[in-house]
Amino acid sequence: MRFSSKIQRCELSPVRKFYPYELAAVEKGLKVRHLNIGQPDIETPRVFFDAVSKFADTVLAYAPAPGETYFLEATRRYYESLGFPISCEDILATYGGSEALQIVMSCILEEGDEVLVPEPFYPNYTTFINVTGGKIRPIPTTAENGYRFATRQQIEPLINEHTRAILMTNPGNPTGVVLTQEEMRLMADIAKEHELFLISDEVYREIVYTGDKLSSMLAFADAADNVVVIDSVSKRFSATGARVGALISRNRALMDEAMKLCQGRLCTATLDQVGAAAMYDRLKPAYYTSVREEYRRRRDAVVAALSKIPGVEFRSPEGAFYLMVTLPVDDTEKLQYFLLQEFQDQGETVMVTPGDGFFSDPALGRNKVRIAYVTNPEDVTRAIELLGLGIQAYNARKA
Amino acid sequence: MRFSSKIQRCELSPVRKFYPYELAAVEKGLKVRHLNIGQPDIETPRVFFDAVSKFADTVLAYAPAPGETYFLEATRRYYESLGFPISCEDILATYGGSEALQIVMSCILEEGDEVLVPEPFYPNYTTFINVTGGKIRPIPTTAENGYRFATRQQIEPLINEHTRAILMTNPGNPTGVVLTQEEMRLMADIAKEHELFLISDEVYREIVYTGDKLSSMLAFADAADNVVVIDSVSKRFSATGARVGALISRNRALMDEAMKLCQGRLCTATLDQVGAAAMYDRLKPAYYTSVREEYRRRRDAVVAALSKIPGVEFRSPEGAFYLMVTLPVDDTEKLQYFLLQEFQDQGETVMVTPGDGFFSDPALGRNKVRIAYVTNPEDVTRAIELLGLGIQAYNARKA
Repeated sequence: MRFSSKIQRCELSPVRKFYPYELAAVEKGLKVRHLNIGQPDIETPRVFFDAVSKFADTVLAYAPAPGETYFLEATRRYYESLGFPISCEDILATYGGSEALQIVMSCILEEGDEVLVPEPFYPNYTTFINVTGGKIRPIPTTAENGYRFATRQQIEPLINEHTRAILMTNPGNPTGVVLTQEEMRLMADIAKEHELFLISDEVYREIVYTGDKLSSMLAFADAADNVVVIDSVSKRFSATGARVGALISRNRALMDEAMKLCQGRLCTATLDQVGAAAMYDRLKPAYYTSVREEYRRRRDAVVAALSKIPGVEFRSPEGAFYLMVTLPVDDTEKLQYFLLQEFQDQGETVMVTPGDGFFSDPALGRNKVRIAYVTNPEDVTRAIELLGLGIQAYNARKA
Repeated sequence: MRFSSKIQRCELSPVRKFYPYELAAVEKGLKVRHLNIGQPDIETPRVFFDAVSKFADTVLAYAPAPGETYFLEATRRYYESLGFPISCEDILATYGGSEALQIVMSCILEEGDEVLVPEPFYPNYTTFINVTGGKIRPIPTTAENGYRFATRQQIEPLINEHTRAILMTNPGNPTGVVLTQEEMRLMADIAKEHELFLISDEVYREIVYTGDKLSSMLAFADAADNVVVIDSVSKRFSATGARVGALISRNRALMDEAMKLCQGRLCTATLDQVGAAAMYDRLKPAYYTSVREEYRRRRDAVVAALSKIPGVEFRSPEGAFYLMVTLPVDDTEKLQYFLLQEFQDQGETVMVTPGDGFFSDPALGRNKVRIAYVTNPEDVTRAIELLGLGIQAYNARKA
């Protein structure tokens, strides 16, 4: 009995391998601080839990395959309030942004097809694409240039007869890059000119520090056939365990293909849709502002703390709650093992995500880490301080 | 921009095309009774809603990729109570049985690979298999033989170098067939001898009318490497909108491959796992008995009512809550249009599921329908009566 070549091109999460070492550190009595996971500590709004508790049907029945009408309507109104009018038929409720990505990749990718993805990229994109038989062709970016990717010179030479789509995260995970309006316009133009799907993962939409108006590729009506938006309530409402996302596109043919898969898996979770609709309907603009300001404080804390570490290189992130940092070490994976096995400061150590998993060529990420700043500023500051001390100890030990 | 050849081999739900005609019938003032959908009217246990309401964390966080420990433990104890000892590592929490099927098919199927499936089969199996590039090779069965499939003569001639797995639903949807212990033993033997995965969809496990002990392919420890069980709380607890299922196998290599996909999509819904675990932990054997007896009353009602219709052929189902019925008409799809557009009795009409979608060659199902008996005996009886009157009117009109 054998396994498919496609699943064999997928990998287990690179984070997983550190887990036994984390356990061992905890057993030794160490407190392990986390800069490695995107699980915010911000409370999930009570309206979510209240709506779920008030669910009054005696039978928890299947939702319709494309989503509960109240969830689709709430999502539509949310987009309308941002200035992006869409209809409910342009929305399919999915199990988080993850299933939306799985569905669109299954609809468009043939064995050998390519998807352009700015690199470094969210590692799970590899799984969603490889399992269909497609593959990622990275759009290389540089730390020096702040990981920006939206130029014709960077993208167009990579387009060939196998290219089906461009997939981008905006605001960016892991880079924190937020595209300008001009860059978004250019991405739409490139997609149109080359007849590509432009899959825009916008799950961090509200978390931007640039002061710009909230954006979406849905703004470009002339590229309506190209644009596919991936969305989710997970990060917007700090409700990652509510698996409610959306696949949004005005491309009717794509939505018809996607509907086949939605019908196949019957529906997404009814109660999570109840809670998500309540959050869209009842949270005021002040909620979004307060969350953004809280992340801004965390961003400022992480930037201030990182600036005190000699030899690190990074740009202050413009959005989302991650940044890539180049560290003055030979191998960030070795550093992580060191931090868990040999280092401590006042009984504490720290975890980051080594950069190799964010690159198609792991060597490109060897001196980089992704940092997630999802806890309060004091905790973030202390965690970065531990990282700095750890780097010092790691390099001293080797010297 | 084009779509993948694999998605183009999938189809929209055949039920969908009748929906506009149902709406039109309702607008004309008709009451439409349903024998076409598997949505039970049995109440979801209060323990589900109570557990969800009592969820006390302030952050609704990601569950672990393989599932919340309390859900895996509750599932493990449920299997232990049935006499099938498994460990938590043998279980992956999934979005219903549907995602468990999607995951296993992605893990094992290559372009051109074949899965043997007793025919008639659950139509969504086609989607789960075709989207991977695989295809169904049907194990033909006959209405005369009560749709039984577990013989060497029926199965072994179909096995070739492309065969990767056998997928069966037991108890059966749409046939109501429940395998005997001897038949299950034979299926395990065939899988072992031919080195095939034996994927056993057991979501209707409790709904059996034969008086036999509840069964699972997990009973066959010698076929542990072959057996993959698909499970779900949807039907067991009448909670179809809670998307909590499980992929269960002792084949560690398979589970390692499946974990890649579980990690890719991060986790399944946290609250649904909370509710599902509570149902497993707190519902007593009397609950399962009462549900089975309720379905038995419905089964008896549907059988009694069908027996009064001249010319129909069927076997009394042994399990699940469906049966395939051969009708004395030329085309059950045409009959369904007639029932919605031209027929009524005392202001009522009825919907069934035409049989064509349950067969790889639609012609084989043309004179068949699937009937779901998921409402109370009186409603089922009246709906079948309407079907009988409708058949009479349909055939009279044509004559």
